[in-house]
Amino acid sequence: MNIIDILNKKKNKGILTKEEIEFVINEYVKGNIEDYQISALLMAICINGMSDTETFYLTEAMLNSGEKLNLSSIDGIKVDKHSTGGVGDKTTLIVAPLVAACGVNVAKMSGRGLGFTGGTIDKLESIPGFNVNLSTKNFMDQVKDIGLCICSGNKDLVPADKKIYAIRDVTATVDSIPLIASSIMSKKLASGCNKIVIDLKVGNGAFMKNLDEATKLAKLMISIGEYFNREVVCILSNMNEPLGYAVGNALEVNEAIDTLQGKGPEDLTKLCLYIASYMVLLSKNMVIDDAMKLVSSKFADGSAYNKFLEMVKYQHGNIDNIEISKNKVDVLAHETGFITEINTLKLGEIAGMLGAGRKVATDKIDPTVGLVIHKKVGDIVSQNMPIVTVYYNKPVENIEEQVYECFSFSKVKKDKDDLVYKIIK
Amino acid sequence: MNIIDILNKKKNKGILTKEEIEFVINEYVKGNIEDYQISALLMAICINGMSDTETFYLTEAMLNSGEKLNLSSIDGIKVDKHSTGGVGDKTTLIVAPLVAACGVNVAKMSGRGLGFTGGTIDKLESIPGFNVNLSTKNFMDQVKDIGLCICSGNKDLVPADKKIYAIRDVTATVDSIPLIASSIMSKKLASGCNKIVIDLKVGNGAFMKNLDEATKLAKLMISIGEYFNREVVCILSNMNEPLGYAVGNALEVNEAIDTLQGKGPEDLTKLCLYIASYMVLLSKNMVIDDAMKLVSSKFADGSAYNKFLEMVKYQHGNIDNIEISKNKVDVLAHETGFITEINTLKLGEIAGMLGAGRKVATDKIDPTVGLVIHKKVGDIVSQNMPIVTVYYNKPVENIEEQVYECFSFSKVKKDKDDLVYKIIK
Repeated sequence: MNIIDILNKKKNKGILTKEEIEFVINEYVKGNIEDYQISALLMAICINGMSDTETFYLTEAMLNSGEKLNLSSIDGIKVDKHSTGGVGDKTTLIVAPLVAACGVNVAKMSGRGLGFTGGTIDKLESIPGFNVNLSTKNFMDQVKDIGLCICSGNKDLVPADKKIYAIRDVTATVDSIPLIASSIMSKKLASGCNKIVIDLKVGNGAFMKNLDEATKLAKLMISIGEYFNREVVCILSNMNEPLGYAVGNALEVNEAIDTLQGKGPEDLTKLCLYIASYMVLLSKNMVIDDAMKLVSSKFADGSAYNKFLEMVKYQHGNIDNIEISKNKVDVLAHETGFITEINTLKLGEIAGMLGAGRKVATDKIDPTVGLVIHKKVGDIVSQNMPIVTVYYNKPVENIEEQVYECFSFSKVKKDKDDLVYKIIK
Repeated sequence: MNIIDILNKKKNKGILTKEEIEFVINEYVKGNIEDYQISALLMAICINGMSDTETFYLTEAMLNSGEKLNLSSIDGIKVDKHSTGGVGDKTTLIVAPLVAACGVNVAKMSGRGLGFTGGTIDKLESIPGFNVNLSTKNFMDQVKDIGLCICSGNKDLVPADKKIYAIRDVTATVDSIPLIASSIMSKKLASGCNKIVIDLKVGNGAFMKNLDEATKLAKLMISIGEYFNREVVCILSNMNEPLGYAVGNALEVNEAIDTLQGKGPEDLTKLCLYIASYMVLLSKNMVIDDAMKLVSSKFADGSAYNKFLEMVKYQHGNIDNIEISKNKVDVLAHETGFITEINTLKLGEIAGMLGAGRKVATDKIDPTVGLVIHKKVGDIVSQNMPIVTVYYNKPVENIEEQVYECFSFSKVKKDKDDLVYKIIK
């Protein structure tokens, strides 16, 4: 078996065997297949696709490339949650304590990731003192103690995905449904959960630009779940505008804290209740109405917020001194009208330029910067009204103009899209 | 402009602009685009193709990546000859002196190349003392003196092609018609000739497996020629069996010498007369019948052989002591029957395994080894008759069996394919 034959096969629309896929992944991780060979294969996969069965084998080979977390000593059905990534997505900070407050153990290893803003771990690190670097033992002990822990991911999980993702990022081979599905699912499977809820973002700020593509991805991830005997539920949610108002690490933590206290944006609150309900449903084998009732009550009575505070304390954080940059500037509306569209991707990129995200793994994040959006799709603005506040530390050229250009206006009101398009399970 | 956008464009079947193609080639040669990015682009081109116009721009960008030879101080219309590569192809050794004997200046820089057997330069180096490493001045002086010089290619011609070819070779991106056409044509254009005859091999021992593909490649190279105002003639010739009988560097030189003396294999002799006639036709603006007559007379009267000897002497070679390995073994027929098919590619690979070729540029060639094929398609063999003699220095496992498996037999005679399928101009 050799990589040239495998490349030729995929180039000519062939179906790779399990052995061929294992060979590629194993030899690439070992360094016997070169980056320029894997990138050629990834491009061939982007263009010619992969069958479902090939995708199962790819997921399996990636999963087997590293360690797997064993959560069996923790009681109950472990449900993990994943978001495919968007702008202003701080749901984990709210959903994890909410689900834990419902009596479901939440043992979540999360990532820093690349992107416009940091991952969940970067966000938590904007809480002074919060310790995200736990040993597996301390992580497990904390879950057994208080039913909730979020810490930095084990570096030895799915090394193949880390290596492949780094190449996909710089070779325009990210937007392939089988590659996205196998990347997400191999990581979730390695993290030791029994069931998975995936918040699949759809819209101009997400990988998946339309419902058709998102539905394909959801169905593929559910099939991968079936192959590995794991139940998967996908919630397809709107990413045609940022989720909530805050974009940036500390800003998002503050918004999550507000939300847990019932003072958060409506869209963020609603989506978190949805995701949490499906996690509880999967864990407790409930019907959706009962799960929603339980989740809503634990949200409304402050249990979720208290659970969050309990976790912060356990991990040595202090939410009283979360720092936001003192330098800010308001972006004002030039005209009066309704917002019809927000270029969410571009807004995310601007947050990244401010320092809220990282382009390469070695970039340092500035937790104090970002954007707060005051007006979203369907909202009316009048001239000189602030539509966004920019928190910055280093100057970004034409920042106000760049932010303003992300918004489209009309004299005619456009209704918001649905927040949740559909549930696929 | 950036490589990610360009990769996305080609991945989505877009047409690249002249500026984008120049950007890719220039930045790759400078080292600002990585190997894993160019390989992804090459794979996208293999699958999604390139328009003729894109191919012209690619050829131009590669041509402009390095130096160009200026042959204008040499009299007459300079015609170059190129072969797309096959097994046992030693035509240049015969054609170049033959054309020179017809009074056409032949100034040929040739390659070592990768492959089953060496390039023309490797073959010439199996002649003791033969100096292939000439300065451009000595090269030009020799042509002015005796009308003929073959020397090693200038390393500064088309560096982009060298760098790209090295990657294509290890990423299964060789067999793309636009990539093959731009690679060949950029090198021919850089070598300073006015007109070009291309011996385009078709068959199981060539890149082009069938006439349809070969015709496409021929037409594209002719179009590239038109774009650069260079006349191109393509001779589509049979590579379903080795050309001549000898495969291996010194063995092929001996066969070329025999052929120049009128004692060579019929197919090799005939093809050389063909190629030489088209070169003379292009250079002297003759009709084909007149060109054939002139070429045949210079072949028959020994002028071509004398010109070859003149070149060898000028470049300090001595054909009296060409060394062939003393270790040889005959591969015998197991049965009586007609040869219906020869796996030419596999025979070439076996020659490579013996040491006649190189896989990577740093491999050292053994000029003394190779194969002499005694029987070809359509020939009858009887049991225990030798069909191939193997000349070796290092043992190759199951060599006799491997060679024998390259031949298919039948009780029914199969006629040989045509030697020259068609001429496209």
